[in-house]
Amino acid sequence: MKRERWQKEFSEWFNQMLRDADIMDTRYPVKGLYVWLPYGLKLRNSVFEIIKHLLNDSGHQEVLFPLLIPEDIFKKEAEHIRGFEGEVYWVTHGGRDKLDVKLALRPTSETSIYPMFARWIRSHADLPIKVYQIVNIFRYETKMTKPMMRLREVTTFKEAHTAHKNWDEAEAQVKKAVEIYKRFFDELGVPYVVTKRPPWDTFAGAKYSLAFDTLAPDLKTLQVGTIHNLGQNFAKVYDLKFETAEGKHDFVYQTCYGVSERVIAAVMMVHGDDHGLCMPPAVAPIQVVAVPIPFKEEETPVQQIAESVVNELNSIGVRAHLDVRDIRPGKKFYDWERHGVPLRLEIGPEDVKKAQVVAVRRDTGEKQIIQRQAIRTKVKQLLDEISGDLRDRAWKRFKEIIHEASDVKSIKQIIGKKGGMVRVPWCEQEACGQMLEEQAGVEILGQEFDGKHASGICPICSKRAKSYVLMAKTY
Amino acid sequence: MKRERWQKEFSEWFNQMLRDADIMDTRYPVKGLYVWLPYGLKLRNSVFEIIKHLLNDSGHQEVLFPLLIPEDIFKKEAEHIRGFEGEVYWVTHGGRDKLDVKLALRPTSETSIYPMFARWIRSHADLPIKVYQIVNIFRYETKMTKPMMRLREVTTFKEAHTAHKNWDEAEAQVKKAVEIYKRFFDELGVPYVVTKRPPWDTFAGAKYSLAFDTLAPDLKTLQVGTIHNLGQNFAKVYDLKFETAEGKHDFVYQTCYGVSERVIAAVMMVHGDDHGLCMPPAVAPIQVVAVPIPFKEEETPVQQIAESVVNELNSIGVRAHLDVRDIRPGKKFYDWERHGVPLRLEIGPEDVKKAQVVAVRRDTGEKQIIQRQAIRTKVKQLLDEISGDLRDRAWKRFKEIIHEASDVKSIKQIIGKKGGMVRVPWCEQEACGQMLEEQAGVEILGQEFDGKHASGICPICSKRAKSYVLMAKTY
Repeated sequence: MKRERWQKEFSEWFNQMLRDADIMDTRYPVKGLYVWLPYGLKLRNSVFEIIKHLLNDSGHQEVLFPLLIPEDIFKKEAEHIRGFEGEVYWVTHGGRDKLDVKLALRPTSETSIYPMFARWIRSHADLPIKVYQIVNIFRYETKMTKPMMRLREVTTFKEAHTAHKNWDEAEAQVKKAVEIYKRFFDELGVPYVVTKRPPWDTFAGAKYSLAFDTLAPDLKTLQVGTIHNLGQNFAKVYDLKFETAEGKHDFVYQTCYGVSERVIAAVMMVHGDDHGLCMPPAVAPIQVVAVPIPFKEEETPVQQIAESVVNELNSIGVRAHLDVRDIRPGKKFYDWERHGVPLRLEIGPEDVKKAQVVAVRRDTGEKQIIQRQAIRTKVKQLLDEISGDLRDRAWKRFKEIIHEASDVKSIKQIIGKKGGMVRVPWCEQEACGQMLEEQAGVEILGQEFDGKHASGICPICSKRAKSYVLMAKTY
Repeated sequence: MKRERWQKEFSEWFNQMLRDADIMDTRYPVKGLYVWLPYGLKLRNSVFEIIKHLLNDSGHQEVLFPLLIPEDIFKKEAEHIRGFEGEVYWVTHGGRDKLDVKLALRPTSETSIYPMFARWIRSHADLPIKVYQIVNIFRYETKMTKPMMRLREVTTFKEAHTAHKNWDEAEAQVKKAVEIYKRFFDELGVPYVVTKRPPWDTFAGAKYSLAFDTLAPDLKTLQVGTIHNLGQNFAKVYDLKFETAEGKHDFVYQTCYGVSERVIAAVMMVHGDDHGLCMPPAVAPIQVVAVPIPFKEEETPVQQIAESVVNELNSIGVRAHLDVRDIRPGKKFYDWERHGVPLRLEIGPEDVKKAQVVAVRRDTGEKQIIQRQAIRTKVKQLLDEISGDLRDRAWKRFKEIIHEASDVKSIKQIIGKKGGMVRVPWCEQEACGQMLEEQAGVEILGQEFDGKHASGICPICSKRAKSYVLMAKTY
């Protein structure tokens, strides 16, 4: 697979793209904190509108919990706090007073939400509960930070929390969450694998964790969503007891699942190219830009026609924009290309005469002539085609980098030379898994969810493999 | 003016209403922090959608800045920090580390936004800048806290920030902001006065502050919006310099204006009654609830018709809900009344036969029969009538409590007996103003914006008055 410049120099490409496309200003004077610019924020809002709709339509209700969690409540679940205590920000002072109880900035909201669940749940009739919120969360990252990917303030975190009357219902909810996230990433054209994380990479306090990973252009994987079956762990700590239909008492079974603004990074990186960003139409702040190409005395009709085209497209719900800036058309083309606008319409005097526009696709550069009276249908059709093609292209690339290997040497070789992911047979023993990571210098993402039946032997102990794991260098 | 029970016992009414209408859970274990429940959050989202549209349509762009502000940057503007230092929360630790530089939780965002403005503004061509964000902000309140009104985490704060090339443009922007807020409150049916706050109640760092106040049912005023002309104060501190058209250098002129979730408290309190909440249709999470009233064997057709009515209303953009719970209709009526649903439709066997529904207004209790085929137009018309009537009723009440007084004794008497606001002539000397507040035991809201020309004498110094001030007990 030939790799393009933007893939080889991904890190520079990403930063350049954030600037050129007005996504974020990365010069805020605190490490790991960034400023969303208007164009970037529109993208962010569109992406999270999609997940909101998916959640609302599947029986989730939006709520909003406080950011601050008192230390004593935060620290009740011992395993959870062990997982987070290294990266929690603490508020210790209010005004000139030292606080009696320190307050944590939520790194995630289990410990603020579940004590309230305890007040809401009395009987099986109160179950299931399915809520979500979209909030800012905080992690004191000591590693290298990166916009949208490794942050101290995650400005946009969607976390869903559910409570059920038995294990089976919670398991069914995990499967539903997988379906919801699949639909979400499919709408964004972001390819993924779903794996069950190994025990040593399970969410602190969970029975097990599933995760969605996609692939960055530098062929490292990026975790873009997680789903946790919490069993009764938190329920026992926060006393989430309910009366069953039979009049007995039990603790609820819980799940939680989250996606963050990493999804936005993923959208931008899987659809990029050497010219920068290429937005999928579903979330593009501007889907179509019309550029009038005036020629001497014919300026007015050209601009008028361009305006009427834009109005017509807006009227059918297409996000169209007319660029009337007093700069050369070539400069405009370049600018909108960098902003990843999926479709450009050029309208010059000749086009006005012939009652047509010239449409140029951002993804392929392909030009075609659209008759003025067919503009609505044709533009919608082109946007659909672009969505499909971007998704197909991203998936094609993605599938090409899943390799097979059955010994440590090949794993190292493949990852070293080709990058991407390697599918490896595993005996499911924790010790072997950790040894495998260590020897190969590559992380285990996890066992493939709904993956194929294993054959072969574990590269460490040579016993019969029970499942496959995917391994990769990760973000 | 006869006062109803809910007005006399406002504080209890408000808390009861929050519970009965599922707006908020106030049992979160930290003072001044509360949990938005799904129904309340929908109201909150609708209210802030309105202001977002108004801002987008008037050339503002949405951005998102970090929550955390480093101490050194936060403390640059001396007057600003004097205004806030008593109520700022400080993050001092990340994980197990003490931070080198303390981080403030933003109490408002001037000090996080303006240092970035300095990077965005080079020349007059970069101006004006008009941005806004909707974020959570924090105040270490030591006074009594109250949901939505006096908070430690204001979960929902819309703040707009603008920069201009001269004083006149900034002044013009202040006037535009007043217009935007007037339209906002008019859409919500919330009555208001606009005053220029006295110098001792001006926003820390501003040249002057305007404020919108409405009236709580207990006849104390509630500040629901503020607009500040910052002049060049912050510009000089954060070095917001630009090159003018003439090639000179100047500091920008700035304004900022904000509304918080207090607006939501205002919406609920100005339209309430002894039965609880009464939502204005513009922001009601459910605008119309249909309650089937089944009778023996005729259950199925009644429910089917009710369902078709709801679907029809949803299809024209009315937020209609079908209540099919297995409880008595009377219980449903009571429940939706508490939730403030503007219009209830009752559908029984008799109505099915006659191809009609019975519509009951939440605000007046008035019943009327609507023919099935006229349902769309009639429901829309009724919702419009309810919006207008709620607004008129609120404004009527509001105007009734603006009294006139010209000496300290009358001010005390009026506020003591009747509550509300008193209009008082003032010489505009700061000393007299503060003395007036002290002697009357009542606060000065400020001078009426666009108020009538003053006559009479200052109640303190007996010199000729220059303007009127409004005085009231305030939240």
